[in-house]
Amino acid sequence: MPALYRSFRSSVPWLILSLEAVFMALFYLLFPDSQKRGLLESLYCSSALFCHTDLQDVSHMLIFGFGFFLTFLKRYSFSSTGFNLLIIALGIQCSILVENVLVFLTERIIPIPGEGELSSMVEAAVSMIAVVISIGAVLGKINPMQSIVMIVVEIIVFYVSTWINRQFLEVQQRMCMMHVHLFGAYFGLAVSSRFSEPSPNSEKNASTPKSDLLSMLGTLFLWVFWPSFNSILAFEKEKAIINTCLALAVSAVTAFTLSGLTTKDGKFRMAHIHSAALAGGVTIGYAADSIMSPWIAMILGLLASVISIVGSFCLQNCLNPTLKIHDASGVHFTFGLPAVLGALTQVVFLVIDIQAGLPSSDYVVILRIGAFCFTVSVALIAGFLTGFILNFRLLKPIPASKYFEDQNYWE
Amino acid sequence: MPALYRSFRSSVPWLILSLEAVFMALFYLLFPDSQKRGLLESLYCSSALFCHTDLQDVSHMLIFGFGFFLTFLKRYSFSSTGFNLLIIALGIQCSILVENVLVFLTERIIPIPGEGELSSMVEAAVSMIAVVISIGAVLGKINPMQSIVMIVVEIIVFYVSTWINRQFLEVQQRMCMMHVHLFGAYFGLAVSSRFSEPSPNSEKNASTPKSDLLSMLGTLFLWVFWPSFNSILAFEKEKAIINTCLALAVSAVTAFTLSGLTTKDGKFRMAHIHSAALAGGVTIGYAADSIMSPWIAMILGLLASVISIVGSFCLQNCLNPTLKIHDASGVHFTFGLPAVLGALTQVVFLVIDIQAGLPSSDYVVILRIGAFCFTVSVALIAGFLTGFILNFRLLKPIPASKYFEDQNYWE
Amino acid sequence: MPALYRSFRSSVPWLILSLEAVFMALFYLLFPDSQKRGLLESLYCSSALFCHTDLQDVSHMLIFGFGFFLTFLKRYSFSSTGFNLLIIALGIQCSILVENVLVFLTERIIPIPGEGELSSMVEAAVSMIAVVISIGAVLGKINPMQSIVMIVVEIIVFYVSTWINRQFLEVQQRMCMMHVHLFGAYFGLAVSSRFSEPSPNSEKNASTPKSDLLSMLGTLFLWVFWPSFNSILAFEKEKAIINTCLALAVSAVTAFTLSGLTTKDGKFRMAHIHSAALAGGVTIGYAADSIMSPWIAMILGLLASVISIVGSFCLQNCLNPTLKIHDASGVHFTFGLPAVLGALTQVVFLVIDIQAGLPSSDYVVILRIGAFCFTVSVALIAGFLTGFILNFRLLKPIPASKYFEDQNYWE
Repeated sequence: MPALYRSFRSSVPWLILSLEAVFMALFYLLFPDSQKRGLLESLYCSSALFCHTDLQDVSHMLIFGFGFFLTFLKRYSFSSTGFNLLIIALGIQCSILVENVLVFLTERIIPIPGEGELSSMVEAAVSMIAVVISIGAVLGKINPMQSIVMIVVEIIVFYVSTWINRQFLEVQQRMCMMHVHLFGAYFGLAVSSRFSEPSPNSEKNASTPKSDLLSMLGTLFLWVFWPSFNSILAFEKEKAIINTCLALAVSAVTAFTLSGLTTKDGKFRMAHIHSAALAGGVTIGYAADSIMSPWIAMILGLLASVISIVGSFCLQNCLNPTLKIHDASGVHFTFGLPAVLGALTQVVFLVIDIQAGLPSSDYVVILRIGAFCFTVSVALIAGFLTGFILNFRLLKPIPASKYFEDQNYWE
Repeated sequence: MPALYRSFRSSVPWLILSLEAVFMALFYLLFPDSQKRGLLESLYCSSALFCHTDLQDVSHMLIFGFGFFLTFLKRYSFSSTGFNLLIIALGIQCSILVENVLVFLTERIIPIPGEGELSSMVEAAVSMIAVVISIGAVLGKINPMQSIVMIVVEIIVFYVSTWINRQFLEVQQRMCMMHVHLFGAYFGLAVSSRFSEPSPNSEKNASTPKSDLLSMLGTLFLWVFWPSFNSILAFEKEKAIINTCLALAVSAVTAFTLSGLTTKDGKFRMAHIHSAALAGGVTIGYAADSIMSPWIAMILGLLASVISIVGSFCLQNCLNPTLKIHDASGVHFTFGLPAVLGALTQVVFLVIDIQAGLPSSDYVVILRIGAFCFTVSVALIAGFLTGFILNFRLLKPIPASKYFEDQNYWE
Repeated sequence: MPALYRSFRSSVPWLILSLEAVFMALFYLLFPDSQKRGLLESLYCSSALFCHTDLQDVSHMLIFGFGFFLTFLKRYSFSSTGFNLLIIALGIQCSILVENVLVFLTERIIPIPGEGELSSMVEAAVSMIAVVISIGAVLGKINPMQSIVMIVVEIIVFYVSTWINRQFLEVQQRMCMMHVHLFGAYFGLAVSSRFSEPSPNSEKNASTPKSDLLSMLGTLFLWVFWPSFNSILAFEKEKAIINTCLALAVSAVTAFTLSGLTTKDGKFRMAHIHSAALAGGVTIGYAADSIMSPWIAMILGLLASVISIVGSFCLQNCLNPTLKIHDASGVHFTFGLPAVLGALTQVVFLVIDIQAGLPSSDYVVILRIGAFCFTVSVALIAGFLTGFILNFRLLKPIPASKYFEDQNYWE
């Protein structure tokens, strides 16, 4: 398809370049010099709240964790790791900008970091997790140009949704950031519903033992760094770490159990382990530092793993074929359903607290439910629209027969 | 062998599930609510002694280090990394429980952490190293059901042995924890002596260049994180780190030297590098923060590497065939012998201190030697018994012809 | 070639062993006992300036980053990771010794660590980066014996050059350490100019998709740890981290752009991504904490990436064939040119500061330029001489037909 390649060649680099030029211009305008203006302070000077190891832990998850988590396709490992790097490099700049433009537009020119605030850089890195999850849902089906458009739209929508949550639904910034998995998974799913399914007997949409092992490496990275990730968003860091460790441990154990029970011959399936072992970490994220007893964390880990494996069975056999959604790397049951469970748990905990006479009100419960529904709705609607835009001829969507192949993009 | 598979299917997941249920019930009983009872404090509230990076460093060693260190078998990489995850996830819960049940039973209901104490979570993670080393000795020869039984027994015995060391032999908790390598290696060896040897010309019990490289990745992870590991158990962290770095460096250098001298044509053998490069870290562990001069650390690194390579030659050619032990991943000469050397060194240092007139007594020397002999004996006896139990028909031991194969367990 | 192997066998291990003996003797003489002499204090007791995570970050870069960055050759992955370990293990000891011998010889027996000083161990690890870069330039063309001679010479020359920079050109120690990339790249290039080129149609000097992916893993490690590395050498750590992150992000984005623009069909080339994504980190290293506005860091990242890809095109097509240099892993355009750009930028910033009336003088500018020219000259001259020495018959140089092959060294 030489015509496609020529047009591809003529457009992708220029799109990236012009985007980068816009980013630099905006950085210049927003943060001109540390000695003159105030906005910059939110980038360099938030020293009390900026912790280098936090940023490093999130980077590890993004680059190694997700980069290798998505390498399970046999002919797509270059693109999985390579485009992951491109997307993170572009997205992190976009993220910092959108965040600060929003602050600028809403006239709180010098944001005074308070309780529950994260530094710009860490916040940008955390929000990239939503982007990387979404990309997972359409892995191998979108070209680099489409993915760039997609991430820019997603980051803008995510920050606007976060901003509305903070302004009107009184959710703290750290709480908003816990919605990354939820937002990422449903945005990605909505986008993927606009793409045609691959032919069912395509052998390219499969994994080899080697690529599964590489993907396992990514899963292990995510598994090891998840406690740190949850502790970044928590106030009581140690409690968050211990609860997350326990939830992840129970999740991994349950993943093996259920995988053995649901497959033929009682063998284990690597894909089950990949997704269900992480489910506990996603679920516990919402309440990692408010859980008072370790056994509750363990129950949550168990439920998350169950919902993930049962969900994977139901979705792949019933819902997805009906809705014609093809969820390339199973983000719905790996991140989506466990995040829904986590959000519900948080509400249940609040209700229990109220009944126990703790100083919490029904109003807070309604606001939390509102924030959850709002986030999911925004993700779905924005995802559908983005999926619609991505199929414009201008962006040269790739035909279904060319899905899941590296050789379109790499020498 | 469909009958084997059916029975395998009907039992492994249920075993895991019932074990997990027991763990959860015990967690519920032992740590019911942070506001009501005291025992919980040992899980959440040991803030002064709990350091997140410590836990993270040990996790890295367990998950990446040992996970990939054991992937050298050509057809067993899924099981090496996958079952490693399962074992760590189950073991860490078991470890926390056994530790706290012991505290509970001995009526020190609220342990007041003193000098030499580690937090529950870090201690559990460190003691998992013994388990992972033991698993290495029988790698590829036991099925998941056997490995679960084995780790539960091993964790209980290890903690009981540690408890006796602390109560009767006046060894500090951190010192006890240094016995992990010793205990793990000899327990594993004793278990493996009860398993039949693989047929000598089986081509499954071999490595490929690809699997060797993956195993090298694991070795490098262990090599890089060993200084941190030794510093967790040391009081003077910086000294421990510098001494461990030097010992590891000399070990790696000596590994290359001896590998070149002992192989045909003077080529290097990857397996030598894997084991001997780590020997220095194991040996120095016992005295990392009490060594006063860097050259002593270097000499220890050299001796450890020599003992590891000479040991590997002697053991594989003389002792193992005589005793009919098949040490699948060489834990005897990688962890066992260097740990013995380390324990001896510690005693020698004590004797030198006494002769130099330092405030140390013969009594301490005898206690140290006692602790060492006691730990090794317990490990050997418990290992033999466990190996005996593991061969019960109930646990469906795999026949020697099915050793070292992934496809029994994975789709 | 049995004769070659025999002689190889008879010499490499003995060379390593005698070197190790010399190292141990020197360690014994220089640091006899922490209670008696002062020199030792620079190894154990620099507590205020020694940070364990710094050492760990540099170790990760050295072992994983460079170890896997250099595995792109299809038949050389064992040697790339294995000899990397050997070189680092030997080099770090050599480095500590040379550093302290220099201090000893210049009669500042007890160095009082002042502003701008690093602890011995961290400094040794940082200076190993120069060595690893140099080895990259002659990857696959030198045998272990040659590489050991090369690194010993390089470390001595590097420390002497650093010492002269500090004593006579008034450069702070941290600034001197920023020259590692510059020194390493040009030393390596000068050495490689003395080796014959491989035959152009040799299929061994090529990468496979698998080895490229492993090399990508190394690149990602370097990419993720580069902000930490630059922060070690910086005074304002947070600013250095944020600036380095932005520069690396822009570099990675630009690497994709330029790779798409310069290759046939607009496909991306993995080798471009490998080198250009890191260029921004190298360039920004010189001024990471003195850049006041993020957009300047981004511009530098862009320029570094452009210079790296344009440089790779020019060098490979024009300069290298003329000068008969074969730069095995492209260290010239990955580390050399971006470091030159960084050094120039530092000078430009100083000039701007002077014109803005800041308290800086022309004298400092001249000293900086002097330090840069001096470092490059020393690297080139010492490299040529070393390359000359390495081709002595005594060191058994390998013939060009045997380049890039593992099987000369590994069983």
